[in-house]
Amino acid sequence: MEVINRYITIKNHIDAVPQHSDFELRSSSLSLSLDPASDEVIVKNLYVSIDPYQLNRMKSYSSSQKSSEFAVAITPGEDIDAYGVGKVVASENPNFGKGDIVAGLLKWGEFTVVKPGGMLNKLDPMGFPLSYHVGILGFSGLTAYAGFFEICKPKKGEKVFVSAALGSVGNLVGQFAKVLGCYVVGCTGSKEKVALLKEKLGFDDAFNYREEPDLESTLQRYFPEGIDIYFDNVGGDMQEAAVSNMNINGRIAVCGVISEYTDREKRAAPSMIDVIYKRIKIQGFLAGDYLNLFGDFLSTTCDHLRTEKIQPLEDISDGVESIPSALVNLFRGQNIGKKIVRIAEE
Amino acid sequence: MEVINRYITIKNHIDAVPQHSDFELRSSSLSLSLDPASDEVIVKNLYVSIDPYQLNRMKSYSSSQKSSEFAVAITPGEDIDAYGVGKVVASENPNFGKGDIVAGLLKWGEFTVVKPGGMLNKLDPMGFPLSYHVGILGFSGLTAYAGFFEICKPKKGEKVFVSAALGSVGNLVGQFAKVLGCYVVGCTGSKEKVALLKEKLGFDDAFNYREEPDLESTLQRYFPEGIDIYFDNVGGDMQEAAVSNMNINGRIAVCGVISEYTDREKRAAPSMIDVIYKRIKIQGFLAGDYLNLFGDFLSTTCDHLRTEKIQPLEDISDGVESIPSALVNLFRGQNIGKKIVRIAEE
Repeated sequence: MEVINRYITIKNHIDAVPQHSDFELRSSSLSLSLDPASDEVIVKNLYVSIDPYQLNRMKSYSSSQKSSEFAVAITPGEDIDAYGVGKVVASENPNFGKGDIVAGLLKWGEFTVVKPGGMLNKLDPMGFPLSYHVGILGFSGLTAYAGFFEICKPKKGEKVFVSAALGSVGNLVGQFAKVLGCYVVGCTGSKEKVALLKEKLGFDDAFNYREEPDLESTLQRYFPEGIDIYFDNVGGDMQEAAVSNMNINGRIAVCGVISEYTDREKRAAPSMIDVIYKRIKIQGFLAGDYLNLFGDFLSTTCDHLRTEKIQPLEDISDGVESIPSALVNLFRGQNIGKKIVRIAEE
Repeated sequence: MEVINRYITIKNHIDAVPQHSDFELRSSSLSLSLDPASDEVIVKNLYVSIDPYQLNRMKSYSSSQKSSEFAVAITPGEDIDAYGVGKVVASENPNFGKGDIVAGLLKWGEFTVVKPGGMLNKLDPMGFPLSYHVGILGFSGLTAYAGFFEICKPKKGEKVFVSAALGSVGNLVGQFAKVLGCYVVGCTGSKEKVALLKEKLGFDDAFNYREEPDLESTLQRYFPEGIDIYFDNVGGDMQEAAVSNMNINGRIAVCGVISEYTDREKRAAPSMIDVIYKRIKIQGFLAGDYLNLFGDFLSTTCDHLRTEKIQPLEDISDGVESIPSALVNLFRGQNIGKKIVRIAEE
């Protein structure tokens, strides 16, 4: 049996803010009859994750390509892998059977042919919607959990600042911090988002960075006692301002640097004198290094979801053709929470 | 009994490269008869330490003044404290007696009146010259030891890069790294210093940064397999180039940022994308946080000195009046190893 597989590619490398015209929807026919010796699995993709880091892989330059499987460069014209959830429609791999719900590295397309060794696991939805397993219970969640608890080693009562606080990772970091008993302030890009942070997600305070001409004094205003932990999703000026306002033994988890993704000149130049005298730690990390925590993360987060101590925040678009605008809008700050594309109904 | 105490002050705040004319030699009379209730100690200073961080304290602005006793702002006209070794000439403190050799926070002058609570300890020279206890066996040594072993957590065979490698801390970091079995490259500011690093101190390689127009490719040349540890004494461009050449899980101990001390605009803007993908840690530190390691540090370093596994490297000037040029020349790269001023013969 053959199906038509529609998928997204880039037409060219993208070295600036991504535009809709950088992308293309292609299609090819795909046979669902696998070679019995192939060990392959064909997954019908249901939900795929849309993340800012994908833009790094689309650049013509990258000093980081070889450092992680999530950083492998994307070649124009080729399909693009992304974390997602799907259903097995054909399998010659003894670990997977037709109808299995799976999570792993799928494609920005309607189907994924997973080769032996590909990242794929059977998924137990545990009573939650499948989309949760792409975001809050997937890699975004693990990123927030590992970055906050392992890198920042937070203590109750500490002052926590989160940038891109309504993003897939930021909103969770803030919520984890609140559950722990920290004071949490988030920054985001609109009045409506500020309200969401405070009213829906329970942040102690929040501000719209677009209305703040001097971020250093803004942070001084929101943190009169200084910042203990900065969970950095944006880099640039905001990181500089955070370092200026940091307390002794402050910790910065560098999770993302949206400012650098679209403009490599927009780098943070934090005061290293502050870094020394305040013994600040600036630490980059990738969630993939913390798979050993996945079990802990999952049970903790499921508990918090069931007791409604944390709220899921999803922003779902429909159809493979909506992937380009989903990514483009991420860099325009138009997502609210975890951006996911639903490729097909379950 | 009264003595004349000559001491150094600054005439004004110093916000740029320090000049000889920024300093002044003053004198005042000092009574060696203490009030029996004062608990004070008068020390005749023998050796005092000259360190780049002092310049930070001389600035008109400082965001870090309150973060450490070593960062307290210096007021023009007042005496300046500095680590040193001396001999007690009067004491109303029961812990100290006349003739005791002591180490602690003294003054850039001929005498120090140490108030109760001041940092002062009796010193056992353990057969080494007193000057060693100002540098290699004092705070410079502890800075190198704590920064390298505690912050960088080095492993045998790792690739270590040290900037300002002939400085008081840098030369020791390189020597500690060699003893551990690391591959060590240092950078410094002249051909003669490069030769010293390689021939006298046993660095695997060294280069003169003044001859290198493109530091990123320089470091690529010296570290074809990448840098695991960067011990940063300079900040600025060099830190950026090191981040570019860093391996996964690379560690940067930020010990000093000479480039920022004299020009706050000359900040490093390392690629945070590299920091993330390579999981780089950038950590500031102060030796004062590691006094608990002083015993370990001292016994290890004394052993290495006795077995000649490490070489002391001292640059000693004579007389309180030589302090200003000692500091000024530090920022011109004219010191070779630990800069010390001998105030008086023992």
